[in-house]
Amino acid sequence: MNLYLTLNKAITQWPKNEAIVDGDKRFTYEQFGERVSALANFLVDSGYKKGQVVAVLCPNGHEIMEIYYACAITGIILNPINFRLSPTEVSIILNDSEAVALFLHSDFQDCANKSLPDASTIKQVITFGAGKFANLGVPAVDFEASIKKHAGKPMPVADVGLEDLAQLYYTSGTTGKAKGVMLSHKNVCLNALGAVTELNLSDDDTWMHIGPMFHLADAWSVWAVTWAGGKHTFAAYFKADEVLKTLSKEKVTICAMVPTMVNALLNHADRNQHDYSKLRMIMTAGSPIAPEQVKGIFREFGCDYMQFYGMTETSPFLTVSAPKAHLRNLPEEKMLELKSKTGRPFIAVEVKVVREDGTEVKNDDTEVGEIIARGPVVFSGYWKQPDTTAATLIDGWIHTGDMAVVDRDGYINICDRKKDMIITGGENVYSTEVEYALYAHGSVLECAVLGVPDDKWGESVKAIVVLKPGQQVEAQELIDFVRGKLGKFKAPRTIEFEHELPKTGSGKIFKKGLRDKYWAASAKKVH
Amino acid sequence: MNLYLTLNKAITQWPKNEAIVDGDKRFTYEQFGERVSALANFLVDSGYKKGQVVAVLCPNGHEIMEIYYACAITGIILNPINFRLSPTEVSIILNDSEAVALFLHSDFQDCANKSLPDASTIKQVITFGAGKFANLGVPAVDFEASIKKHAGKPMPVADVGLEDLAQLYYTSGTTGKAKGVMLSHKNVCLNALGAVTELNLSDDDTWMHIGPMFHLADAWSVWAVTWAGGKHTFAAYFKADEVLKTLSKEKVTICAMVPTMVNALLNHADRNQHDYSKLRMIMTAGSPIAPEQVKGIFREFGCDYMQFYGMTETSPFLTVSAPKAHLRNLPEEKMLELKSKTGRPFIAVEVKVVREDGTEVKNDDTEVGEIIARGPVVFSGYWKQPDTTAATLIDGWIHTGDMAVVDRDGYINICDRKKDMIITGGENVYSTEVEYALYAHGSVLECAVLGVPDDKWGESVKAIVVLKPGQQVEAQELIDFVRGKLGKFKAPRTIEFEHELPKTGSGKIFKKGLRDKYWAASAKKVH
Repeated sequence: MNLYLTLNKAITQWPKNEAIVDGDKRFTYEQFGERVSALANFLVDSGYKKGQVVAVLCPNGHEIMEIYYACAITGIILNPINFRLSPTEVSIILNDSEAVALFLHSDFQDCANKSLPDASTIKQVITFGAGKFANLGVPAVDFEASIKKHAGKPMPVADVGLEDLAQLYYTSGTTGKAKGVMLSHKNVCLNALGAVTELNLSDDDTWMHIGPMFHLADAWSVWAVTWAGGKHTFAAYFKADEVLKTLSKEKVTICAMVPTMVNALLNHADRNQHDYSKLRMIMTAGSPIAPEQVKGIFREFGCDYMQFYGMTETSPFLTVSAPKAHLRNLPEEKMLELKSKTGRPFIAVEVKVVREDGTEVKNDDTEVGEIIARGPVVFSGYWKQPDTTAATLIDGWIHTGDMAVVDRDGYINICDRKKDMIITGGENVYSTEVEYALYAHGSVLECAVLGVPDDKWGESVKAIVVLKPGQQVEAQELIDFVRGKLGKFKAPRTIEFEHELPKTGSGKIFKKGLRDKYWAASAKKVH
Repeated sequence: MNLYLTLNKAITQWPKNEAIVDGDKRFTYEQFGERVSALANFLVDSGYKKGQVVAVLCPNGHEIMEIYYACAITGIILNPINFRLSPTEVSIILNDSEAVALFLHSDFQDCANKSLPDASTIKQVITFGAGKFANLGVPAVDFEASIKKHAGKPMPVADVGLEDLAQLYYTSGTTGKAKGVMLSHKNVCLNALGAVTELNLSDDDTWMHIGPMFHLADAWSVWAVTWAGGKHTFAAYFKADEVLKTLSKEKVTICAMVPTMVNALLNHADRNQHDYSKLRMIMTAGSPIAPEQVKGIFREFGCDYMQFYGMTETSPFLTVSAPKAHLRNLPEEKMLELKSKTGRPFIAVEVKVVREDGTEVKNDDTEVGEIIARGPVVFSGYWKQPDTTAATLIDGWIHTGDMAVVDRDGYINICDRKKDMIITGGENVYSTEVEYALYAHGSVLECAVLGVPDDKWGESVKAIVVLKPGQQVEAQELIDFVRGKLGKFKAPRTIEFEHELPKTGSGKIFKKGLRDKYWAASAKKVH
């Protein structure tokens, strides 16, 4: 069993159904299968082998779907790269994953130009996109030309087992070091089958890829929607007016976003200009949602809503806010409250909220514990980092670092975060990493980076900085300095200068105290 | 990942929901979990270990559910035994499986008394049921007393992986030798998750176990219904009036039967005496169904209908006759025809209909090929029979022996059988096995056993016999003779005497010719 099963299902059962609608391009599953097969043949004929890593840097579109599948079928491990990262970060990832080839969209040619010289294992770049490519300093072939050249050959399905790796997704961590999350075919398949079940996906559905497909918050749908015989459509990048237009034009039935995107749609002037009558469900993930926003979804789109929660390490589903049978007729306000919760455990995983001693918290909506999870969707570890793996996966249970309560119906609700992480517009930012970048500036004596409430982004990155004696520097200079080192979304939006930082008894910076000040007005300590 | 996940889900998410309704007994999932835990502790404390085999001989009820789960949790392999087999057949199975213990219901005490003396590996019998037990010649303990004694201990969950064996189901085969079908936790879990998906099982559902739970045609629902948080209710044995009463009283929403049972319900005088308004779906399997019967289901029960097809070796689902999106608004007659077909492939498996050379037949509803299947629900082999396994599992594909056509929408329809097998009232009977039994009677010179169309049983077992010169014997004597050796359902219902049997060029009995005569009036050659 491997991810090929999901494509085989669609090709054999719905060959003439539309698989892909990407702007003017429309492919049936038969056509999509032929393109995937050609791309897979290109990979095999080029000498790439099962177990090798190939990376991709591109926006949403049919190409990344084809790349996901061509790799899955040949047993090649795909390493999708966050296109918001800096060239330095990209080269660190390419070196760590030991990627041998890079699928590159022309939109990220600048980034590649700066990162490829430091990426020692990349032997070839496969290029696509509307832009013209200059010399990349590495042998390059054209994506479409490669597909044309290898068309018509039988699909080269490799002997891939459940435990074989399918993808390598990078997350940064508290240590500031990039970590490759190893997901197996088992992880990704079981998540996909569970998602088909929990979301009742069928051949009647059209999914819109709105969140970036380099991230598992959307990429799980590549497999799940295909398995169910549904249709895929895309937003290359999130632009509210275009998303509204495509939702209507392509009769999208279901999609997922981060709450920031929902806000943008709800507040867009064009929102009433379209017909969303086929839309049956909007899902959100990435950060908590306010009941008012859920009400806005009901009002403006007339569809159902569900929150889901997960992490890359869990393929990603851990919970969904779907009402259990006895809660299906709640009055509106209670239903809003329920659907705004983090949710009940997803079908293919065990989830517990535990005290420090490992026992479960009471189902009283009050006692706080850490969310831990175990099951076939839980990853096998971080790439080449056994120690970090051992600290995260304890007796098979992943420790999420998210702190939550559980209500008497078994619904989990996240209220705080154990790890020092900020979630801004759906992107994880580890404060340590930003602090390290700030410390690299000669003027900084001490600093603490925190997430603070932000109406648009959920949370935004704030730095509290103490300068070295005699130093003077503007906030903007420090912000630009960090932007030069890390992805722009990781740089502080605001900086406050202080004379000193509060310390704990052992002399560590008392970040919790700093953070609490900004969250005093909120019921929860995450947004 | 293992089958424990399915129970853990129900215990943690629906602790106060009813899990089991068995006559006057009603257990919530919390209570059911406690009983399973106690039984599992009994097994562990009695020294039974992961990888050992334990057998069960009983009718449907809460006990077999508890036994299935207690074994799954402790990694013990359960060997459920067909209670319609003869004592000789039972002892052959017990010896082949090397079962160390037997869960025994008092209804089958006579069978056990005759089979246990020849079952050399059984060390203990765990008894239950209303009847009194005489000395079985093997140490015996009481089921309920064992549960009471081990109540309150933590659940002894073993370290069980996907590839570990969960169950061993016996089927007889063309060779007449019993074969143990090895199903792993992976096989059974993936089938269950797929079933939840395909049947939209939820915590709103009540399943009635109508078919015998020693057989996978019903036993898959043990895991699937629990995983979804549904309720289980039971028919100990099939009695039409009691089934009708329970369907109504317990507000059953979904169940599966063989067409023979559907017929019995549709023709029962009490069928209009009850309220089936909660019933949403009746499924059938085991033999093809006539569109008229499907119409009867719609008319008498006012619920939906779906056919499924599978085999023990595939955990069992291979196809379901669920309409694809573009077929959901067919006119009634066309819909009846569609739903009466064998179906389209089940989500968690690849199914093909192939020619002798392995290429797929045309989707023209005319060309006949053999159904083959591959995927995570396909068994790993026959217990201790590598040669039989190698003949059945070729390059990972199981060869079903069922011959079928495929229509242009990808729906498969079985029209003949490659293997010499009869399906009577949902039970598989291999004709060779019955022939061997007949040949053991001194008067029989030659014989051929065939399935012939039967209004009640779908097919019934017929023998064509040539007696030795000078011998004379009544049909009933031969029938009784076979009944003394095999399960009653395997014995011929009718016997015809001939002076000789037609032969093929190589001198073999030309069974196809004999068989075709009885099927001349039918469109298909199976019922």
